[in-house]
Amino acid sequence: MKRHIIGLDVGGTKISLIIATDAGRILVKTVIPTEVERGPEHTIKKIIAEIKGLLKEVKIKLQEVKGIGIGVPGSLDPIKGTILGSPNMPGWSGISLKDILNSEFGLPVILDNDANTAALGEKLFGAGRDIDSLFYFTVSTGIGGGFIINGKIHHGASFNAAEVGHMVILPDGPKCNCGKRGCLEALASGTAVARSAREKVKNNPSSLIMKLVDNDVELITARIVAEAAKEGDELAKQIYQEAGTFLGIGVANVLNLINPQMVVIGGGLSYSGSILFEPMRERARQEAFGRTYQVCQIVPSKLGNTAGCLGAVGLVL
Amino acid sequence: MKRHIIGLDVGGTKISLIIATDAGRILVKTVIPTEVERGPEHTIKKIIAEIKGLLKEVKIKLQEVKGIGIGVPGSLDPIKGTILGSPNMPGWSGISLKDILNSEFGLPVILDNDANTAALGEKLFGAGRDIDSLFYFTVSTGIGGGFIINGKIHHGASFNAAEVGHMVILPDGPKCNCGKRGCLEALASGTAVARSAREKVKNNPSSLIMKLVDNDVELITARIVAEAAKEGDELAKQIYQEAGTFLGIGVANVLNLINPQMVVIGGGLSYSGSILFEPMRERARQEAFGRTYQVCQIVPSKLGNTAGCLGAVGLVL
Repeated sequence: MKRHIIGLDVGGTKISLIIATDAGRILVKTVIPTEVERGPEHTIKKIIAEIKGLLKEVKIKLQEVKGIGIGVPGSLDPIKGTILGSPNMPGWSGISLKDILNSEFGLPVILDNDANTAALGEKLFGAGRDIDSLFYFTVSTGIGGGFIINGKIHHGASFNAAEVGHMVILPDGPKCNCGKRGCLEALASGTAVARSAREKVKNNPSSLIMKLVDNDVELITARIVAEAAKEGDELAKQIYQEAGTFLGIGVANVLNLINPQMVVIGGGLSYSGSILFEPMRERARQEAFGRTYQVCQIVPSKLGNTAGCLGAVGLVL
Repeated sequence: MKRHIIGLDVGGTKISLIIATDAGRILVKTVIPTEVERGPEHTIKKIIAEIKGLLKEVKIKLQEVKGIGIGVPGSLDPIKGTILGSPNMPGWSGISLKDILNSEFGLPVILDNDANTAALGEKLFGAGRDIDSLFYFTVSTGIGGGFIINGKIHHGASFNAAEVGHMVILPDGPKCNCGKRGCLEALASGTAVARSAREKVKNNPSSLIMKLVDNDVELITARIVAEAAKEGDELAKQIYQEAGTFLGIGVANVLNLINPQMVVIGGGLSYSGSILFEPMRERARQEAFGRTYQVCQIVPSKLGNTAGCLGAVGLVL
């Protein structure tokens, strides 16, 4: 019986690989560096070797494997299985992971965007079991999204749906990596938190943030700011308050537009907990229609960094 | 053969009634005043009499009618067929049009929100035939929306989806009727255009707008501003430019989130043409992802003010 699935979550710095059952039970997991600088050929060879090693490790034959699911960053052509363009993975454009792995293993290979994949993981095996419609936010260096409707990923007309990080909510706001201004990503991502902190410590040199980085402004990250906030530092708390408030506007806009049963917040910033979630929930409550807010559970990711791999498994199911 | 459908579009000031074939051909149409001040009982009696009159007029027997579809403003309980709350129709809350018309005619009665209904009308019989996913904006006194996905209305978890008018795109912007600030409706609706004009004529007393209202600021409407803009009045053009730009941000946010094949712009302001559409398209192009924008047709409503009635017919199909 083909009861096993190989799931990959491919990122700009690392690649997670799992073998799981069709019930989402992870049998084995490993993480390898992407080594973008060495090009896709090198890394794909490593992926193939790792898959072979993992199968051997859990004593599963290829005949028992249903397929390979892969989450990749950026936009992709799901039919050809090629990555179209990923800012963090130059050199991978046009590479068909699908063809390469399919001809190597003789298994079906299905690719999808990594935020979509994580959304599917949460729907099938995480916070959203028994939920038909959910919207997943990944709040990390950037902000991405995945939209599950009637239990399935909503891809949109050109496979570009759920780009919630580039929803404009402050037209004259700070510049985003995408070139526009006032995108949610420019206001509530880890990058936005760190940038805001770097600016604000200038007038607040006594903030704990500065102590935590030995007065080297360049070392400030969202994680450092979260640490300072949890220690009670006023500036750090204010920065998270602002980011959470903007995130709450983003959540409310999604609620008013899509009216989902659940919003799942994942990604690195979701670990910061109440310093982000409290202002986010408060603002979402203010901005969304009453019933729309009431029927929607807003919860942190349950699967954390395995959401992507498990969602990749879900692609094959 | 039950090939005919009765469609109603119920609004705060008037009610449109049609009898159409299942192919969307309108056999007869009439419009009656809602007379909100006289209460729902009075108006429902009139609706029943009109339906009977129309059936007689086109010589169609009840046995040939498949059902009655109704678009209503505000939120509703689609199962009970009751209007839950409509700011423009006080007194109608809790009234089950469904039960009343069903027991009168013995026909299936299906209600939906009026913007959803208009979206369905455009999908089935208007701009969006052969289109699976479209988002409909009604830009009028307020701004509403309807979201068609896989050919069907997306209602959301509490039947409140597609409230695009209350997407926040300028957090400290002008106050909206809903009580919040910076909603799309507060920036790009007919009300917003008129309010902006009333403020701006103070510093521009020579604007054509003032001539068109005989210097009575209270008489300024979005239609008057459009008239002045078409005559080349700079202030009026600027006001539409601003509204169109905000509408373009709203359209882009919908595009980036949903990635539809088509956006249809209906409602009173859509008749203003290029003075609204040009800045809207330009800003949407700037703010939406390239492929997302390229694959999406942004078009004016094809059915105009019959979209609601024809969509109501579509509810029954």
